Amino acid sequence: MSDKAKKALAELTGRVKQVNLLGSCMALLGWDERTYMPFKGAANRAEQQSLLAGMAHEKFTSSETDDLLSEVEAGDLIKDRLSPDAVNVREIRRVYDKKVKVPKSLVEEISRTTTLSEQAWVEARKKSDFSMFAPWLTKMIDLKSQEAEAVGYKKEPYDALLDDYEPGETATNITRVFTELRRDLVPLVEAITHSTRRPNLSIIERDYPVDRQTILGKAASAAIGFDYDGGRMDVTTHPFCTTIGSGDVRITTRFNQRHFGQAFFGILHETGHGLYEQGLDPQYRGLPMGDAISLGIHESQSRMWENIVGRSKPFWEYFFPRVRQVFWEALSDVKLDDFYFAINDVKPSFIRVEADEATYNLHILLRFEIEHAIFNKEVKTEDIPALWNDKFQKYFGIKPPDDARGCLQDVHWGAGLIGYFPTYTLGNLYSAQFYAKATEDLGNLDEQFTRGKFDSLLVWLREKIHRHGQRYRAEELVKEVTGKPLSHSYLIEYLKEKYSPLYGI
Amino acid sequence: MSDKAKKALAELTGRVKQVNLLGSCMALLGWDERTYMPFKGAANRAEQQSLLAGMAHEKFTSSETDDLLSEVEAGDLIKDRLSPDAVNVREIRRVYDKKVKVPKSLVEEISRTTTLSEQAWVEARKKSDFSMFAPWLTKMIDLKSQEAEAVGYKKEPYDALLDDYEPGETATNITRVFTELRRDLVPLVEAITHSTRRPNLSIIERDYPVDRQTILGKAASAAIGFDYDGGRMDVTTHPFCTTIGSGDVRITTRFNQRHFGQAFFGILHETGHGLYEQGLDPQYRGLPMGDAISLGIHESQSRMWENIVGRSKPFWEYFFPRVRQVFWEALSDVKLDDFYFAINDVKPSFIRVEADEATYNLHILLRFEIEHAIFNKEVKTEDIPALWNDKFQKYFGIKPPDDARGCLQDVHWGAGLIGYFPTYTLGNLYSAQFYAKATEDLGNLDEQFTRGKFDSLLVWLREKIHRHGQRYRAEELVKEVTGKPLSHSYLIEYLKEKYSPLYGI
Repeated sequence: MSDKAKKALAELTGRVKQVNLLGSCMALLGWDERTYMPFKGAANRAEQQSLLAGMAHEKFTSSETDDLLSEVEAGDLIKDRLSPDAVNVREIRRVYDKKVKVPKSLVEEISRTTTLSEQAWVEARKKSDFSMFAPWLTKMIDLKSQEAEAVGYKKEPYDALLDDYEPGETATNITRVFTELRRDLVPLVEAITHSTRRPNLSIIERDYPVDRQTILGKAASAAIGFDYDGGRMDVTTHPFCTTIGSGDVRITTRFNQRHFGQAFFGILHETGHGLYEQGLDPQYRGLPMGDAISLGIHESQSRMWENIVGRSKPFWEYFFPRVRQVFWEALSDVKLDDFYFAINDVKPSFIRVEADEATYNLHILLRFEIEHAIFNKEVKTEDIPALWNDKFQKYFGIKPPDDARGCLQDVHWGAGLIGYFPTYTLGNLYSAQFYAKATEDLGNLDEQFTRGKFDSLLVWLREKIHRHGQRYRAEELVKEVTGKPLSHSYLIEYLKEKYSPLYGI
Repeated sequence: MSDKAKKALAELTGRVKQVNLLGSCMALLGWDERTYMPFKGAANRAEQQSLLAGMAHEKFTSSETDDLLSEVEAGDLIKDRLSPDAVNVREIRRVYDKKVKVPKSLVEEISRTTTLSEQAWVEARKKSDFSMFAPWLTKMIDLKSQEAEAVGYKKEPYDALLDDYEPGETATNITRVFTELRRDLVPLVEAITHSTRRPNLSIIERDYPVDRQTILGKAASAAIGFDYDGGRMDVTTHPFCTTIGSGDVRITTRFNQRHFGQAFFGILHETGHGLYEQGLDPQYRGLPMGDAISLGIHESQSRMWENIVGRSKPFWEYFFPRVRQVFWEALSDVKLDDFYFAINDVKPSFIRVEADEATYNLHILLRFEIEHAIFNKEVKTEDIPALWNDKFQKYFGIKPPDDARGCLQDVHWGAGLIGYFPTYTLGNLYSAQFYAKATEDLGNLDEQFTRGKFDSLLVWLREKIHRHGQRYRAEELVKEVTGKPLSHSYLIEYLKEKYSPLYGI
């Protein structure tokens, strides 16, 4: 019996590794498409991706996978639910069941609709005309509702969609934490808005030659621990981090010669993702135990390095003298305090992707509330613009001048990415809670940062988070690492402690 | 009947296109491996390649391919042997039969032996010790003999191996042409060697900054017709050209800051390959009708643009003033005639890959004669060094000082690439014969070149060669395009006409 289960497990993991190896080939095709591919290669690239995707899907969803899973599940190999074998089987089963539940015809219709809906969205945003996009959004919501029904859920359809990005998370739990966060964050942002202190932003909008930004960005990402022997950095339009396989993790960025921070903090952000990927256990590569837990946990790593570390005073006590040498023309007359204030400007703004680390979460709360209400049938498509603007006024104290700068700014809904938005703020919440625990365990890290030492934090993250792969669900991991359930208070505490002295509030 | 054959043909071509699409994914993996992959990614890359190679092999060599081929062959779709359908079926059949004839165990043993044999070769060359390499070479020759027997041949085993690179070509035909070539080329090189005129090579060994070489190299390849919207150029150690698919052809180069020509002519060479690939008919991409004929024909395109066009006086009448502006420090005191002479230096030398366009062919004749004699069992492994040196003395008038600069210099034999060498000189022969015909059809092209116009030559090559894919075998194509069978006389004529005035012979 046990031998049979062992054999089945070996076959199962071999199968899944092969599927993921095909996925890793697709990752390279995707990386190349967004970095170096000549534009006439697009049609061929789509064919390549679709061939490999089809092969991977076929192999994974074949009934043999199910048979092998059942054989292993019947044995006692998975008795210890946190053992690597049990974790692998649990997560393969979870994904398998979801994939076979959604009818092929629905998958194809969502895929077709996404293409058309995205095109409509581009046009609608250009003209700031919500009515052009509304029918597509309605259709997409209907299709995603069908998907949720097919997949199934315990409490509400939204949970089924959320599960794709944050396995095990629920709208109930998110609502609880986000409501508390909103209660504390709105007044904090309001206080900052009413402060008379404002940074001199022109400092970071001087001339920052791209070649020097490149060298500096790489040096900074290497300094916090990114291994360039097992990774690289390239230029793209929409920065991302991708893993081609063990020993091959790639980050990307884009440069703005007239802005210091866009590339620099973007690089730290992607480096955070990259460090997580480089910290996964290579012996489990291609299996759940060697894979990241969720988008939220991934984002907690990128946000920690970008914001909590990368925008901190100690970080800049170390880096600023170095950066000033590299950009002497731009920074020779600038003081550390002024630079530090400029890279930590907080103010209400309409566009999410340009928002600072404090107001960013208000953008997410608003989106979550709306998409959650939609899937609970409390809101109709045509009500979105008014609802958006009302909420915006309440949370930010300003009102979007048009829908292009309001509810039409993001591609997500039109692309069927429902349940994706909350992972951004979950990432911020996780990052603050993890970091609070790290300083509890390791002592105050500031002094180390001022000396350019970041390895004790990285070693802690590797041990507490990275090397576990998908052993824990996100909410379990938070409890396991910090001893407490997810709470909004760590992020609020972090923001207050940082911004009170800056804005004199 | 016809309907059945039609259906089978559609299925067959769909199948083969899918196999080639997998191959195109492997092409990207290979390109990335040699350009951008971080070195720790090597093990994962090997797994990716081996997975896709296995899938492609399995799909192609399955008995279904054979069944479909038989069904189509039984119908009348292939009655007209030059029709696209007939060409596709003929070439798929040819490759299929070869692949299934070689036992899997032999393929695997050749693959294993290649790895070990290449390692032994690296060491042997380093120490210039042929005896370290000899046992591996003997084993490889034995394995390749077994392969030749498995594949089968009409006249001699060597033909079976040659067929992998130059389908339909025979040792008999090559021997005929190469013997005539040797008869005329040896005295020509001797005459040049004895000339008292010598170019001033220091001109092209000045400081040529790499960033400017890059811009110039791209400009030159674009000027002769390479489409950078459907291609790119990157840096690598051993330059190559690869096709990722329709609209995506990539060339690579390496730069030497202290040598003008290495990158520049390397780029023209790879551009020649790239122009052939970009000229293939996209409607047949992934099928023999949309694929190159042979290594020799491919090389005829690269050599034509590199040497016949790229090292010609008219080409430099156009480019030299431009290049001088780019490299003003290096070239302001240099005259066109001296530059032209320097890039056309001809002299006997030991290393094939560094040889000029005239002596290069002597390197190939010598290698062909030896490998051909080996496979006819007229020569034993241990006799190679002495035979090599004797022939070298006869053809070049100099004797290699050691085996590292003699019979140990190339990786080919140790890697099992038997029958590969002759394609280099076949390429030179084809290129001269094609070019002679092109000037017959188009009139003297020199005047166009001096104005930087290269499109009438490219259009001619596209129409006469590129767009036909594998419709003709190489020898047929030569007859079809030039009206005559392959002859050594065009290359000799070209060399005499070019080098007589330069060397006063």
